[in-house]
Amino acid sequence: MILITGASSGLGAALATQYAEEGHTVTISGRSAERLHTVSEQHTNIHPIAADLANEASVTMLFDKLSASTPNTVIHCAGSGYFGGIDTQQATEINTLLENNVTSTILLVRELVKRYRDKKINVVIVMSTAALAAKAGESTYCAAKWAVRGFIESIRLELKNSPMKLIAVYPGGMDTDFWLSSGKTLDTSSFMSAKEAAGMLKQALTASEHGYISDITIQRG
Amino acid sequence: MILITGASSGLGAALATQYAEEGHTVTISGRSAERLHTVSEQHTNIHPIAADLANEASVTMLFDKLSASTPNTVIHCAGSGYFGGIDTQQATEINTLLENNVTSTILLVRELVKRYRDKKINVVIVMSTAALAAKAGESTYCAAKWAVRGFIESIRLELKNSPMKLIAVYPGGMDTDFWLSSGKTLDTSSFMSAKEAAGMLKQALTASEHGYISDITIQRG
Amino acid sequence: MILITGASSGLGAALATQYAEEGHTVTISGRSAERLHTVSEQHTNIHPIAADLANEASVTMLFDKLSASTPNTVIHCAGSGYFGGIDTQQATEINTLLENNVTSTILLVRELVKRYRDKKINVVIVMSTAALAAKAGESTYCAAKWAVRGFIESIRLELKNSPMKLIAVYPGGMDTDFWLSSGKTLDTSSFMSAKEAAGMLKQALTASEHGYISDITIQRG
Amino acid sequence: MILITGASSGLGAALATQYAEEGHTVTISGRSAERLHTVSEQHTNIHPIAADLANEASVTMLFDKLSASTPNTVIHCAGSGYFGGIDTQQATEINTLLENNVTSTILLVRELVKRYRDKKINVVIVMSTAALAAKAGESTYCAAKWAVRGFIESIRLELKNSPMKLIAVYPGGMDTDFWLSSGKTLDTSSFMSAKEAAGMLKQALTASEHGYISDITIQRG
Repeated sequence: MILITGASSGLGAALATQYAEEGHTVTISGRSAERLHTVSEQHTNIHPIAADLANEASVTMLFDKLSASTPNTVIHCAGSGYFGGIDTQQATEINTLLENNVTSTILLVRELVKRYRDKKINVVIVMSTAALAAKAGESTYCAAKWAVRGFIESIRLELKNSPMKLIAVYPGGMDTDFWLSSGKTLDTSSFMSAKEAAGMLKQALTASEHGYISDITIQRG
Repeated sequence: MILITGASSGLGAALATQYAEEGHTVTISGRSAERLHTVSEQHTNIHPIAADLANEASVTMLFDKLSASTPNTVIHCAGSGYFGGIDTQQATEINTLLENNVTSTILLVRELVKRYRDKKINVVIVMSTAALAAKAGESTYCAAKWAVRGFIESIRLELKNSPMKLIAVYPGGMDTDFWLSSGKTLDTSSFMSAKEAAGMLKQALTASEHGYISDITIQRG
Repeated sequence: MILITGASSGLGAALATQYAEEGHTVTISGRSAERLHTVSEQHTNIHPIAADLANEASVTMLFDKLSASTPNTVIHCAGSGYFGGIDTQQATEINTLLENNVTSTILLVRELVKRYRDKKINVVIVMSTAALAAKAGESTYCAAKWAVRGFIESIRLELKNSPMKLIAVYPGGMDTDFWLSSGKTLDTSSFMSAKEAAGMLKQALTASEHGYISDITIQRG
Repeated sequence: MILITGASSGLGAALATQYAEEGHTVTISGRSAERLHTVSEQHTNIHPIAADLANEASVTMLFDKLSASTPNTVIHCAGSGYFGGIDTQQATEINTLLENNVTSTILLVRELVKRYRDKKINVVIVMSTAALAAKAGESTYCAAKWAVRGFIESIRLELKNSPMKLIAVYPGGMDTDFWLSSGKTLDTSSFMSAKEAAGMLKQALTASEHGYISDITIQRG
């Protein structure tokens, strides 16, 4: 079973649909039961569970509901964007940004380590190219994504001899609803669709007996 | 005037004392009025203002109180630590860690940019060597410090043509109360004292007509 | 046509064989005509051209010979290893290491940019995880690989609006002849075979209409 | 005694002069005996020794001549620049660039580790901000400087329990003869003079009983 977070839209929804169409059993998670339903209703092998990953009780609940079947792959797409010069940003929005990206990832990975550290599970953490470089107009978004990268790299050290593997994914320039709600206006016509990015990511998430692809950057162009 | 945050103990308190002894006027900030008083009571040129930098109203209040005199240097030492394997960490403590390190830095720098971006002010951001590398047992602390680094590097790009300069400081292995409250037990006898680190930092924070020291790492050993 | 350098053994040879078996036309390059022949003799669609990439006349000759058919993909696997504590390393070996890894990559990429910068070509540069982190006992090898990474990241900026794309690959822990000739003895039984790494890399080198996988790290485990 | 390499001009010459004026005994090194003489002739406490650091016999000779007095500080300023789009660069110049920056640093540090690894010596390696970021038009220079950084970070790991310390310095935007000979034309009137940079660096190279400044970036502005 494949668990996908942030799957009510964008890359997460596209991945869920593509994996389902290949016959995989997929559990999707997101904050809105209604939006998850839109993704799951067309595939009998997609199962929605609404959860707020920034809330530890909700994270526990999510995995309790899964407990009959351990995921062999977790793809963490949950996250949100917030942009603009620092002097134009609002404190409440900054807090939401940190919760949606940093707290949610920490609480999810904490739960995965607690429950499954001795299991052979691939945990795919979808970040952004904003985790790899500083950007003007994206200061708090970069803060959030750099935080996730520092966290993931540290957890890799803690999991050194564990069969659980963390796979880091850095996509840039996707054309998703993400931008609509981000407060940033830009022409996204040359951007990758979520479907394109999902197709490439799915193909690149490969492994062999003695190795695996651990880090993937996806760029437009 | 020099404004120092997180100055009720550790590196911030040591810097405040050393600058005051050289004759500088110093404003110190921290959450506890009582602890600030302990630092300020022995120097007539140290002025305490209690403030919680993770609260935007408190940040505004701090700078409103300063408004008669613009600082020429701001040294941001505020922060806290929290350590341990990820499976041993508590959600409430993780939130506190993010607030004390990430939210506070973002709100402070946002206020500085709003008020002073056209002024020649040096803003010194004290992070940690944990901002430069991943560490097992320090995953959320690294998350917080990487966040601050990503934020600061992005703000540098936003301030490209501004006289305001951001100076990044990465100290490692200081022997301060920080460790007492961090949940990590270790022998700190070979660590730098806050006084030693303050002395080195003060000396290295130098500039000339056409240049300045922009990044400083301080190591023990 | 696919051009593969360093293809007389290891990852380069494995890639050549796998692409040939899928029906692609492959040109392989390496310093030893004899060793190239061993790779090419079993596939009529593998064409060997001996060349020393650290010699500019040899690089020019290689591409002059290709001139009838422009490669759509170039996979640069050429390189060599040299290890040990810095006090045990020999100056002549260090020079050879820099030539085999740094000079060869610079001269190859220079030629590609000169000839093909306006063509839609994917140039895959195979480095090593030693390009991403410092390692004791691998100081000059890290020097060589960090050099290649700094070079490639800079050329990406020069090619910003060009259809030519540079794809960076960082493999770690492969079990190839590389180690036999490197002066380092270690148990490589849990390492990936070149064949495994080639299979994963080939799969991950994917693209869509608006995007492509730009950076890939392959780890053992 | 302080040993300064690359001291016939620029930052190295400025450091030599300033340390000499403070009363230190300084040995300066560079390839041209004549140019070294110009620096040393005005101070009786500056002693020139011509040496080509890219040549291992010359490095050995340099330290044999020093053998009566072990340096307590070595400041490695030797290096050269070469710039331009990659398609405009010459192979012979690229080789010279790698020799002057990479080979010379490797051979110098190798000799220092061989002779002095158990001595309390500070080895200051002056790189460039080009070691920290990729730059269009500086691809081979970035290659050379990233190489040095990867090398130095690896040697730090090899020297983990040694009293010998490596201090990394990253200056940007200095106005020295470096630019005249680099093939790059730009207005350097707002750049730091070598004298300014030397003054700041000298001040920032500080240490206490339990700690030291290990990394310094100097920017113009």
